[in-house]
Amino acid sequence: MKKGASQEDAEIVSDLLVRANLAGHDSHGVIRISSYVKAIDEGKLNPKAKGVIEADDGATALINGNWGFGQVLASGAMKTAIDKGKKYGVSAVSIYNCWHIGRMADYCLMATEQEMIGITMVNSTPSVSPFGGVQRIFNPSPLGAGVPSGVEQPFMLDISMSVCAQGKIDLKQARGEKLPPGWIIDRNGRPSVDPNDFYEGGSILPIGGDVGYKGYGLAFLVDILTGALSGSGCASSQEFHGGNGVFILTLDVARFGELEGFKSRMKEVITNVKTSRRAPNVSQIMIPGEPEFMTEEARRMTGIFVEDPTWDAISEIAKGLGVAIPEPMRA
Amino acid sequence: MKKGASQEDAEIVSDLLVRANLAGHDSHGVIRISSYVKAIDEGKLNPKAKGVIEADDGATALINGNWGFGQVLASGAMKTAIDKGKKYGVSAVSIYNCWHIGRMADYCLMATEQEMIGITMVNSTPSVSPFGGVQRIFNPSPLGAGVPSGVEQPFMLDISMSVCAQGKIDLKQARGEKLPPGWIIDRNGRPSVDPNDFYEGGSILPIGGDVGYKGYGLAFLVDILTGALSGSGCASSQEFHGGNGVFILTLDVARFGELEGFKSRMKEVITNVKTSRRAPNVSQIMIPGEPEFMTEEARRMTGIFVEDPTWDAISEIAKGLGVAIPEPMRA
Repeated sequence: MKKGASQEDAEIVSDLLVRANLAGHDSHGVIRISSYVKAIDEGKLNPKAKGVIEADDGATALINGNWGFGQVLASGAMKTAIDKGKKYGVSAVSIYNCWHIGRMADYCLMATEQEMIGITMVNSTPSVSPFGGVQRIFNPSPLGAGVPSGVEQPFMLDISMSVCAQGKIDLKQARGEKLPPGWIIDRNGRPSVDPNDFYEGGSILPIGGDVGYKGYGLAFLVDILTGALSGSGCASSQEFHGGNGVFILTLDVARFGELEGFKSRMKEVITNVKTSRRAPNVSQIMIPGEPEFMTEEARRMTGIFVEDPTWDAISEIAKGLGVAIPEPMRA
Repeated sequence: MKKGASQEDAEIVSDLLVRANLAGHDSHGVIRISSYVKAIDEGKLNPKAKGVIEADDGATALINGNWGFGQVLASGAMKTAIDKGKKYGVSAVSIYNCWHIGRMADYCLMATEQEMIGITMVNSTPSVSPFGGVQRIFNPSPLGAGVPSGVEQPFMLDISMSVCAQGKIDLKQARGEKLPPGWIIDRNGRPSVDPNDFYEGGSILPIGGDVGYKGYGLAFLVDILTGALSGSGCASSQEFHGGNGVFILTLDVARFGELEGFKSRMKEVITNVKTSRRAPNVSQIMIPGEPEFMTEEARRMTGIFVEDPTWDAISEIAKGLGVAIPEPMRA
């Protein structure tokens, strides 16, 4: 708010950053505050910007985000997609000129709360090579898909199409550790377990290993749906200017048949998975989203661990802006 | 037609079987004729059945296929999806009680011919285990996505979410060969390279290897969108009765901005991929769909190779029905 955001928008951004920490995805949590403040100072992110719907026709919409907060824009776009999905049964909304939206799951869960399937994907700065290539062409291409279920928690898939996210490489490098085989190639396309090879022009591999053409194809598809459709540009393009190209889709389950029938089918397949025989040394088979829901439950009791460098950076920003922040609990 | 199909339907089925051979996917080609005739004789496939639209509301539709030919039903459903997509910008159509539809690509390409993005996916009999599990819960979960491009051929992704299709295991077994590592696990969840372990209760792995939870999550999502939404049932469910649960989605590109702008973005990303540096021993980087388009071009000149057992089976059926078929070229 001291940087110009409205209270409403500041609350949306803060809520979603903390929710990422609660879900266990600290790389998408409050650690991002510094980068958002930096982006505001550099004029890349406009904390006052409002999204403007430029094409609003039937079951689709195109939103110019005017480089506002991604969380604010994507929340608003998902609301539009939910309204259109309720009206037409299915809807698709694209956003361009949009800063980082964070985790896909948060928006998808807005749809599941309305008994709808919600799908969200984004592109961003490239770090992933095509199958057979060595240059960074695609971003990890995250895809979130939330589905209402007949059980306590919705089905909530939130994955990237690359073997790992860059944050995991950063962490391994910071700790002086080697990478697991199959994560990256060096700038010449040779498999590497040295994190430094990534920063020296290497790239992350798409999922699939020997059948990596599948992960490559999926990353390519996400880049098209987010960058080519929205007009923000594919990740490797001249016109791509950072932030996220965004694609959102909703499906109103009840249009295809009784909602209760759908939920009983969801319950059956979830039960089939959970009660199926497990491989050696596997204690349980997780439903997509289950690890995050479990982490959130635990962290709502224990609190969120924030490492000193991150907290120090937040404190420094707060001090500079004359904002009082509470003392953290110390372990 | 001798089994009761109309000429129009027989042409659709024949065309798509031969097109699968042309594209190089012989496992989805004329080899299927015997199984279709068998399914008709067993009463599982009704060659006279017409699809009936049961829910037709806004941008969505649900079709009861009455166990007709999948190719006929899916072609009709894609036509409905294209009409609705042109009207509303996006559309979604589900089919239940539907026999095998064959390759996803054929339907997606109907959409790209109309300057639309077309997505098709199906579920079927389970052969793939969840990540950490050892039982067959999901089918390979094929997903096709066709996108109009600014170049000669459209982007045409057609992949499954499992490491391999069962047809490839059948072939390895028939030839007495071992499988590459990472394709299957045996019935106790141990990695195996012996094709027989698959037939003795083993299962195919979802894509991803160490991050196989990604392929598992994608297969799960495809099973939901095809089986749970259409009402045909998830692959592992009590209510699933064979054939395919089908989900079709179209997006009208021009609703989101100028079509030419979209195509120039497609051309740019395709060029970026094709001209990017290659890994050692890689002669070219392929765009999704390119291998199939190249194979089709070649086979339209050389003809399609049909192995003797397949041709003998087709000849036998033709003879039994009193249908004259031409002599094949002999190599």
